[in-house]
Amino acid sequence: MMKRLALLPALALALAARADEGMWTFDNFPSKKVQQKYGFNPDARWLQEAQLASVRLAGGCSGSFVSPDGLVMTNHHCAHSCIEQLSTKDKDFVALGFYAPTQENEVKCPEIELNQLVQITDVTGQIQGATKGLEPGKEFNDKRKAAMAAVEKDCAAGNDKLRCDVVELYHGGQYSLYRYKRFQDVRLVFAPELAIAFFGGDPDNFNFPRYDLDVSFIRAYEDGKPVRTEHYFKFSPEGAKEGDLTFVSGQPGGTDRELTTAELQYQRDIALPERLVNLAQYRGALTMYTQQSAEHRRNAEPTLFYVENSYKAIKGRFEALVTPTLWNQKAQRERALREKVNGRSSLKKKYGTAWDEVAKAIASFQPRRKEYRYVEQGAGFDSPLYRIARDLVRGTEELQKPNGERLREYTDGKLPQLKQKLFSKAPIYEEFEAFKLSYALTKLREELGADHPFVKKVLGKKSPQELAQELVKSKLYDVKLREQLWQAGREAVLASNDPMIELARLVDPDARAVRKWHDEEIETLEISGAEKIAAAKFELEGKSNYPDATFTLRLSYGTVKGYDENGRHLNPITTFAGAYDRATGRDPYKLPDSWIKANENKQVNLATGLNLCTTNDIIGGNSGSPVFDKDRQIVGLIFDGNIQSLGGDYGFDETVNRAVAVHSAGLIEALDHIYGAKRIVSELKGAPGAASGAGAK
Amino acid sequence: MMKRLALLPALALALAARADEGMWTFDNFPSKKVQQKYGFNPDARWLQEAQLASVRLAGGCSGSFVSPDGLVMTNHHCAHSCIEQLSTKDKDFVALGFYAPTQENEVKCPEIELNQLVQITDVTGQIQGATKGLEPGKEFNDKRKAAMAAVEKDCAAGNDKLRCDVVELYHGGQYSLYRYKRFQDVRLVFAPELAIAFFGGDPDNFNFPRYDLDVSFIRAYEDGKPVRTEHYFKFSPEGAKEGDLTFVSGQPGGTDRELTTAELQYQRDIALPERLVNLAQYRGALTMYTQQSAEHRRNAEPTLFYVENSYKAIKGRFEALVTPTLWNQKAQRERALREKVNGRSSLKKKYGTAWDEVAKAIASFQPRRKEYRYVEQGAGFDSPLYRIARDLVRGTEELQKPNGERLREYTDGKLPQLKQKLFSKAPIYEEFEAFKLSYALTKLREELGADHPFVKKVLGKKSPQELAQELVKSKLYDVKLREQLWQAGREAVLASNDPMIELARLVDPDARAVRKWHDEEIETLEISGAEKIAAAKFELEGKSNYPDATFTLRLSYGTVKGYDENGRHLNPITTFAGAYDRATGRDPYKLPDSWIKANENKQVNLATGLNLCTTNDIIGGNSGSPVFDKDRQIVGLIFDGNIQSLGGDYGFDETVNRAVAVHSAGLIEALDHIYGAKRIVSELKGAPGAASGAGAK
Repeated sequence: MMKRLALLPALALALAARADEGMWTFDNFPSKKVQQKYGFNPDARWLQEAQLASVRLAGGCSGSFVSPDGLVMTNHHCAHSCIEQLSTKDKDFVALGFYAPTQENEVKCPEIELNQLVQITDVTGQIQGATKGLEPGKEFNDKRKAAMAAVEKDCAAGNDKLRCDVVELYHGGQYSLYRYKRFQDVRLVFAPELAIAFFGGDPDNFNFPRYDLDVSFIRAYEDGKPVRTEHYFKFSPEGAKEGDLTFVSGQPGGTDRELTTAELQYQRDIALPERLVNLAQYRGALTMYTQQSAEHRRNAEPTLFYVENSYKAIKGRFEALVTPTLWNQKAQRERALREKVNGRSSLKKKYGTAWDEVAKAIASFQPRRKEYRYVEQGAGFDSPLYRIARDLVRGTEELQKPNGERLREYTDGKLPQLKQKLFSKAPIYEEFEAFKLSYALTKLREELGADHPFVKKVLGKKSPQELAQELVKSKLYDVKLREQLWQAGREAVLASNDPMIELARLVDPDARAVRKWHDEEIETLEISGAEKIAAAKFELEGKSNYPDATFTLRLSYGTVKGYDENGRHLNPITTFAGAYDRATGRDPYKLPDSWIKANENKQVNLATGLNLCTTNDIIGGNSGSPVFDKDRQIVGLIFDGNIQSLGGDYGFDETVNRAVAVHSAGLIEALDHIYGAKRIVSELKGAPGAASGAGAK
Repeated sequence: MMKRLALLPALALALAARADEGMWTFDNFPSKKVQQKYGFNPDARWLQEAQLASVRLAGGCSGSFVSPDGLVMTNHHCAHSCIEQLSTKDKDFVALGFYAPTQENEVKCPEIELNQLVQITDVTGQIQGATKGLEPGKEFNDKRKAAMAAVEKDCAAGNDKLRCDVVELYHGGQYSLYRYKRFQDVRLVFAPELAIAFFGGDPDNFNFPRYDLDVSFIRAYEDGKPVRTEHYFKFSPEGAKEGDLTFVSGQPGGTDRELTTAELQYQRDIALPERLVNLAQYRGALTMYTQQSAEHRRNAEPTLFYVENSYKAIKGRFEALVTPTLWNQKAQRERALREKVNGRSSLKKKYGTAWDEVAKAIASFQPRRKEYRYVEQGAGFDSPLYRIARDLVRGTEELQKPNGERLREYTDGKLPQLKQKLFSKAPIYEEFEAFKLSYALTKLREELGADHPFVKKVLGKKSPQELAQELVKSKLYDVKLREQLWQAGREAVLASNDPMIELARLVDPDARAVRKWHDEEIETLEISGAEKIAAAKFELEGKSNYPDATFTLRLSYGTVKGYDENGRHLNPITTFAGAYDRATGRDPYKLPDSWIKANENKQVNLATGLNLCTTNDIIGGNSGSPVFDKDRQIVGLIFDGNIQSLGGDYGFDETVNRAVAVHSAGLIEALDHIYGAKRIVSELKGAPGAASGAGAK
């Protein structure tokens, strides 16, 4: 699984983009390359249709419209939080699965936002122009952010149903304005049991062969009705077979293929090991927490999944970076580029200092990186209640300023998603809050040191456990109270004696100080350097390459293909029979009752494809992406990458990197013959009026 | 704290041994250097006395005789397990402290063995001679181990009260036979409350200034009576002050200062990160376990301490290795040595291939390193019950072979410590066993993979939790049963249907296979290379240097000295006043009642020194080492190193590396005025007959 997370290391990376490499923007897709290799040339209309049928889950996943009535297909793990939020002690939809037999039974997810990309505009001139001639520093930062806020505000023009993001591509070499249609009324339609959605659990995660039904269906609503979607993917009648050409559209969360060696060294020696040990410890604690009771398990499971998934992904990235071949290739490539730049005096003058600027930014960041992470980024107070309190404290202050002068996340263009989160009806569990806060406060003390003035200010003579217990007495569980405080504004928030708001007020001056330092001293230096490197590459290579992933819509191409591992060839398609074989009856290899019964009753065709792997270049964030053929028909649903693909953060190796997907035939088979979800099957097959439940038995 | 653990990284390492660097063997101490720098020349008799007054705790610590009646001073954390093992649900000596007001009240520690080094003999010729002319491989391994076993057996001559170890120094450049007097009847005399022994807990661990009374007193017995010890350290009347010359004798557990860059790279990129994340996750889980009940806390606390301590130490080592200055110095030094060797054809012929042999050993080890660790080293079954079962299974098989053909740990010379552990009366807690086994089996599956044949063989269709629950139904809690099985021998063990013995039998063939591969293919290659490197150094530099630490007796010299940190000068001595200042009333900054009362009653002289730091070069394993002056009078008790000293695994930086000790004056002050332990105070001050309790009120 790979929700908003980068995937894994390859021993030998094909740095030339001859392979099926690339997470291409829709405005720079290499149709000619595809034509050469696969004999099919996606034209402008084809691309446009695929773009409009794809959606983003703003929380960190991908999805696709699969009916004219706003039905969206994504992964179970992308809706896991929603499914948990809709559950209660007595009705655990995570364990039992969820199916709305009629449209009236579809239930709203408190925090899912869908974005449909409708327009891409190049705004490089406006953004880079704002900082032209400025040295890195305060003015650079102010001007740049004001320009971005202005462009976004103009684009959305006060319409909350539009979302406009300025996207930094090629590490600042290009800025594009992405205009999305925004859907915040999104309802749950279908989800299988976690036991089959995540069959094999953490041990099988990032592995292949696989046997998972990692799917959920949700539906976009507008004005209380399913939205009519002109652009959507139809299902392929047969699905894919080995050797077929496949496309994947979706939102890869982030890659680091274009980082400088200074940045890579920082990742290898400091950032990744630190994240890894932090995730490992939290994993140990969380696992124990989930084992304490069924309620703890239900409340903490989505977090545990996130932590285990991240841990495995980061581990793969680290292992890639300590591979000498990868490292040497990267270093050599950078050396060659710098030599070219330094070899021409015009280039040298413009770009010669770029790499040193980036290196300086990295070196300067190190001494205060923990303050930035624990104080400003909130790792020391990691919990929903704290984030709510902080948004109330900061948000009401920021709103008093002109749009262009606010912190980025409080500009007008960002308010709709801020409010969705702030006023979310998702339950917050007091016990789990206490656990998380106590853990985070202990880490805060450990990482900054018991004698750090900020730690002393926050803890005083209290233990982390004591302070956590006080904080969870906050009244911010109550959504009405949050709305009141937000409406009442800054004075009301300043006057509140809610313990969590008091904490957020106490933290804010220190947090703002380290944020200001980071944004002005570090970030501007890094951007200034990275922009130059990108410009040098454009000048020398043109735009023949794709930009690093940025959780924005990309298209990749590839083919259904097995690979060799430990001297064994793995076929690219698994079947239902394999799942029944692999089951042990014990978690995480315990099939749900529905599957066992369906097999006993011989309802399932065991030869049907269940999962498949392809050479498409994807990474965390692509979870939920549609896999489709040249007729834009769904043949699969991305939900993972193999272990070899985790190095994909740094490069792509077609011989072993694989995207892992649910097979479209398996999807239909399970919906139809295991779950009896006739309404959805009809809708996917294009029966008229299926969405309203006419197709249900 | 640093039980058998390496300490911390310095940014700039003084690689020349001009500083107070060095963990010197007693037969090669640089008295002349000390004379030159400090004006005192330790002669042979002085060294002999210091050697005989020092003891080793075979489990991983250091100590010293401090009275003629076998009284031994060491750290609280070195006796922590014993204190826990002597506790019960109703009487928790870890929390409450322990004091035997009379000799009759002293209680036997089930697993402590003391070793007093009485003789050092060079046996290099015998050991190296056995493999002369042999290529690395099976015969090399067989001959070498047989030679070691023979030398050890001859030396001990069947006397269990002697312990003889062949010690590999300079990575195989020299072999010494260390003959010890062995004490297995060791009794607990005094221990303070954990709250002051480990005041500041994990947050203050490896830090300075410090305020810990990390001491315990134990006593060596022979034939049921305190042993008469001719050689012991007396207490200094005043203790140390800034600038005083200090010596530390003890058993540094291990350093890696002479490793090749191939070995260092393996540590940096693979071994240390792996250990770090494993420790981090286990720390998270264990912390939660200890919080579940008071009983869980008591049972698991020593393990948690060990894990947190190791985590911090390894973190420090990793941080040292990613420091470019250290790395470059190491690489440069190796390059220079290899150039010298290759520059002379006689040297090149003998030693030229050495570094490549070591590199090859490292590279060959990698693919099966996890099997070695989880199957042979038992990480997949980490628990006392399993270790007992395994010793029964393996031990009874090995004993059927001639001494020289057995696995090293079952040779005659090793049997006394094996039996002490095997027949230990230390309690084993079923619940904690279940927790540990379930955790370890889960890790086994994760690290080798659910599809690994060994994992399938062990788990079958069971979950790790289920198997753990079955295993803890073993009857091996019963010491009598273990003795019976051991006596009855191999057939009885083969016939047993105890679930843990059945597991050990199931595991053994796989474990032996990977052990054989490791010992014959990997270890011999590494030794062959390392011996050559050591010989090349001897030929070029003589024995002017000390060998890497090997948990054998070493002597270091230094001085009481502060240092600068974050622009602030730290004084080398802290006082009782500082401890009372730092207390918050909350764990881990909660002083015990005894301390609070003593202060309220004004019994304590607040100006008395409590802790101190010195420039002595120490590392994990030195815990419990005496700090003494040129008159061999105790001025302190090593219990930690500062955070900067953790890089000491790779080198020593006198400007910031510091050993941290309890001040001798503080020790007496606390014993006398807080604990009223008059009997011990009298004994330490040399009152006649104090041991028998005459000095007690």
